[in-house]
Amino acid sequence: MPSWPMNQWYVAAYSSEITHELFGRTICDEPLVFYRTSEGEVVALADRCVHRRYPLSRSHLVDDQVVCGYHGFTYDQRGACVAAPAQKRIPRTARIPTWEVREVDSLIWVWIGDQERADDALIPRAPWLDHPDHTTVRGMEPLKARYQLLVDNLLDLSHETYLHGGYIGTPEVAETPITTEVDDEADVVYVSRHMDDAACPPFYAKSTGIQGRITRWQDIEYHPPCLYLLHSRIAPVGVLPPAEGPDDQAFHVEVVYAITPETEHSTHDFWMVARDFALDDEEVSAFLAENNRTVVLQDVEALDVLEVVVEGEKDRYQELSINIDAGGLAARRILERQVEAGRAEAAAGTPAPAGAST
Amino acid sequence: MPSWPMNQWYVAAYSSEITHELFGRTICDEPLVFYRTSEGEVVALADRCVHRRYPLSRSHLVDDQVVCGYHGFTYDQRGACVAAPAQKRIPRTARIPTWEVREVDSLIWVWIGDQERADDALIPRAPWLDHPDHTTVRGMEPLKARYQLLVDNLLDLSHETYLHGGYIGTPEVAETPITTEVDDEADVVYVSRHMDDAACPPFYAKSTGIQGRITRWQDIEYHPPCLYLLHSRIAPVGVLPPAEGPDDQAFHVEVVYAITPETEHSTHDFWMVARDFALDDEEVSAFLAENNRTVVLQDVEALDVLEVVVEGEKDRYQELSINIDAGGLAARRILERQVEAGRAEAAAGTPAPAGAST
Amino acid sequence: MPSWPMNQWYVAAYSSEITHELFGRTICDEPLVFYRTSEGEVVALADRCVHRRYPLSRSHLVDDQVVCGYHGFTYDQRGACVAAPAQKRIPRTARIPTWEVREVDSLIWVWIGDQERADDALIPRAPWLDHPDHTTVRGMEPLKARYQLLVDNLLDLSHETYLHGGYIGTPEVAETPITTEVDDEADVVYVSRHMDDAACPPFYAKSTGIQGRITRWQDIEYHPPCLYLLHSRIAPVGVLPPAEGPDDQAFHVEVVYAITPETEHSTHDFWMVARDFALDDEEVSAFLAENNRTVVLQDVEALDVLEVVVEGEKDRYQELSINIDAGGLAARRILERQVEAGRAEAAAGTPAPAGAST
Repeated sequence: MPSWPMNQWYVAAYSSEITHELFGRTICDEPLVFYRTSEGEVVALADRCVHRRYPLSRSHLVDDQVVCGYHGFTYDQRGACVAAPAQKRIPRTARIPTWEVREVDSLIWVWIGDQERADDALIPRAPWLDHPDHTTVRGMEPLKARYQLLVDNLLDLSHETYLHGGYIGTPEVAETPITTEVDDEADVVYVSRHMDDAACPPFYAKSTGIQGRITRWQDIEYHPPCLYLLHSRIAPVGVLPPAEGPDDQAFHVEVVYAITPETEHSTHDFWMVARDFALDDEEVSAFLAENNRTVVLQDVEALDVLEVVVEGEKDRYQELSINIDAGGLAARRILERQVEAGRAEAAAGTPAPAGAST
Repeated sequence: MPSWPMNQWYVAAYSSEITHELFGRTICDEPLVFYRTSEGEVVALADRCVHRRYPLSRSHLVDDQVVCGYHGFTYDQRGACVAAPAQKRIPRTARIPTWEVREVDSLIWVWIGDQERADDALIPRAPWLDHPDHTTVRGMEPLKARYQLLVDNLLDLSHETYLHGGYIGTPEVAETPITTEVDDEADVVYVSRHMDDAACPPFYAKSTGIQGRITRWQDIEYHPPCLYLLHSRIAPVGVLPPAEGPDDQAFHVEVVYAITPETEHSTHDFWMVARDFALDDEEVSAFLAENNRTVVLQDVEALDVLEVVVEGEKDRYQELSINIDAGGLAARRILERQVEAGRAEAAAGTPAPAGAST
Repeated sequence: MPSWPMNQWYVAAYSSEITHELFGRTICDEPLVFYRTSEGEVVALADRCVHRRYPLSRSHLVDDQVVCGYHGFTYDQRGACVAAPAQKRIPRTARIPTWEVREVDSLIWVWIGDQERADDALIPRAPWLDHPDHTTVRGMEPLKARYQLLVDNLLDLSHETYLHGGYIGTPEVAETPITTEVDDEADVVYVSRHMDDAACPPFYAKSTGIQGRITRWQDIEYHPPCLYLLHSRIAPVGVLPPAEGPDDQAFHVEVVYAITPETEHSTHDFWMVARDFALDDEEVSAFLAENNRTVVLQDVEALDVLEVVVEGEKDRYQELSINIDAGGLAARRILERQVEAGRAEAAAGTPAPAGAST
């Protein structure tokens, strides 16, 4: 049984990654191959030829059809085999599973689980990523650690002070208590840390131009399992949002993560930074991209180490949790419930849908 | 239980590889050490000292005796210990197993299984490799894949079109149906593909000098488990073998593979290309050697990927087979029967022979 | 159950390795972090934060306290947590295990097992390492092999002739019989090989300046599990120790090994060479250091290979032992008994001590 929830949307790629070429990526232990048809539609197929299992991502497209690189089996975008070597008759069963995909907010979402349950209304949104009022930089780092370690990491930002000192961490982050709220109906965890008078880390000082100390708000909104939003508000000390009208004396940065399991021990760590200022300033874009990537790689290094620790432990180690862990623990509870729900749905014996993996 | 047939001959090396130096190679999960005595005889011993298991292949010869590189235990070519450190008396049980080896057609064959059953009459032949009317180029590539994937690969040459396009593949290979015959008494699989009017791939165009389209015959003769022969006939379109006399208007290339399991997940991929033309043309030899090695490495890359796919599959995947797979499926059936026969022989309780591994 | 004895002292490091910086090393499968306080005391803590298991060796010291590099949990030298992020109250259970450590003869010894049983009287001694009448060179090589293979190696020096020819091996080592004594009360194995008239290997020729053949004595004293002493006496042929007074016509080299398991399949191979001559000659020091390191690396290469052989064996291979193995077999018997004793003590239900790992 997988450790992630089934019957959920997961981010598989950025829109820009999927072109009219075959693109292989494993999502939740499913090797998938993606491409964009000549009409712009995104297709997701099982990355395995029906004949001798060769990965189709090592193959090529002819028009909108996938031609296997081993013996030439050819598939259309619905996974149906349309040509086989040295014979005219195509076996009826020559068909590869397809996955439900949606392209929203510049993200490619894929539904993992029973394909007939795919529900567009369940896709969580991050509209800043694809909105003219914001400019976004982004990347993806492969993590050799289970996805839960990244959830823990992102839900407790007190680590910024220690792991990211000199980049986004200052003493105030670890010192300031948090408030946590959980919406158990919508499955959302909210964690807030409002620092009234804090040092301004280089990440914000250089990008906003603010000199001196700041009011720094971190408002996390985690939609398990995949989407993590950090609404970050930066303003000179004392500048609070006005009672009415736009909060235009502050700088807003929307930090977005998509946490997508690749296997039980590896994760796709998608990171995005959208801002509502200096929209056309390429220097700011380059600085934020490089600086945030450095910060993500600091996390990657630490979490890769933790994975080895956790995996190597002889007995299940008893962690110790304190106040700062309230958000992370709430996230774990929701994930556990989601995993359980996915299993119950599978056990309820839904008939295997057309495009589901067998 | 191993996945390969026991009580069979396997190619362990080329004659040229075995000299008066110790040469270690694992054949069917047995670490063996080979050498040629001063009288030219090839010897195969277990690659493990009786004392503390040190690999003898890391040791050296003194005259025709193997001196262990750790503590100096010394063995003659029958595996008997003849010297031990700091004492005159040699324990009676100080003896390492030997294997039956034969040198035929420039190949070193070793009998894997019950050494008392070794039967010279069962060695399949490839006389071109060591015959003055042919010139041969050869090599060996280590494959990180189970041997069955190489059998599948070689029995279905339709893959030449897709995996080896620009080298030996042309559209006609995948398009042309095959005929398959199985000799269930002699355990041989025959697969033939006769292309009457085909493009000439660079492999043959450059080596034969033929310009324009060709008649191209591929006649496979597979002797499971180890020896694979591809009789390849190349001639200008319309030139068929005469009713009588030598077929000297055509070019003949004998492509030979020896498929030898190293472990359950790795294989020695021996490849040889013998030709009956341009016998002394070193440029042709160099071209064929380099070009065929490139083709073999294309297979190695694909099969190494497939091994990971097969090994990582959660459930046993159901392949889909079509007409082109008739030869491969026949080969699998014979291999299965051979594996079963080897197990039955072992179960019948043959007393352990002198030189058998314990 | 570990394959090494519990409730024993093991060498964790050289004194010189432990400074006022965090130093991580795994001893007998326990990840530990070491440091020296500002008062010079050596501290050993579990290398794992109580909060989210981050390795403390990746963290830093502030004064004599360890600050976790992930979220800032801070520990004193007794393992008590003294600070946590964003709150004043420290949970009572926030405490990491400590280990008993002793600094003796320039070695840092750690007690593995029930910390309440740690007994200073059980630390075996090697006083030459830290004595003004001797000069010592040393190093540590990581071995990717189980510690038992290093015990076997060191207890049977006949391998010097074959594995270390041209360095410390000459024909006489393998040719000369040994005498073996076992002290079953003190758990010590003695193996002696006295060569009356032997070639002088470069290791001793270049360091002592002796020309011509030598009297060479090798007197091993192994204190299982960890400490191995080789008293080596080198003198011109015929020069024996006087009936009374100092043996000052001979050169004495005290070769010391500490054999410390890291995991079940890796070992810390600490090696030291102390001499009672040419005390201030840096050229001799450099020569002995480089030459002995080369010899140790020859062992490492051989034992790393043997580990793969042993680990890969399908069945438990039956070794063959002869006279030279008497010391190694005696060592195995004592180790077995020590392992058994450790298990019996654990089973006897000693209450878990304050600093024991859980």
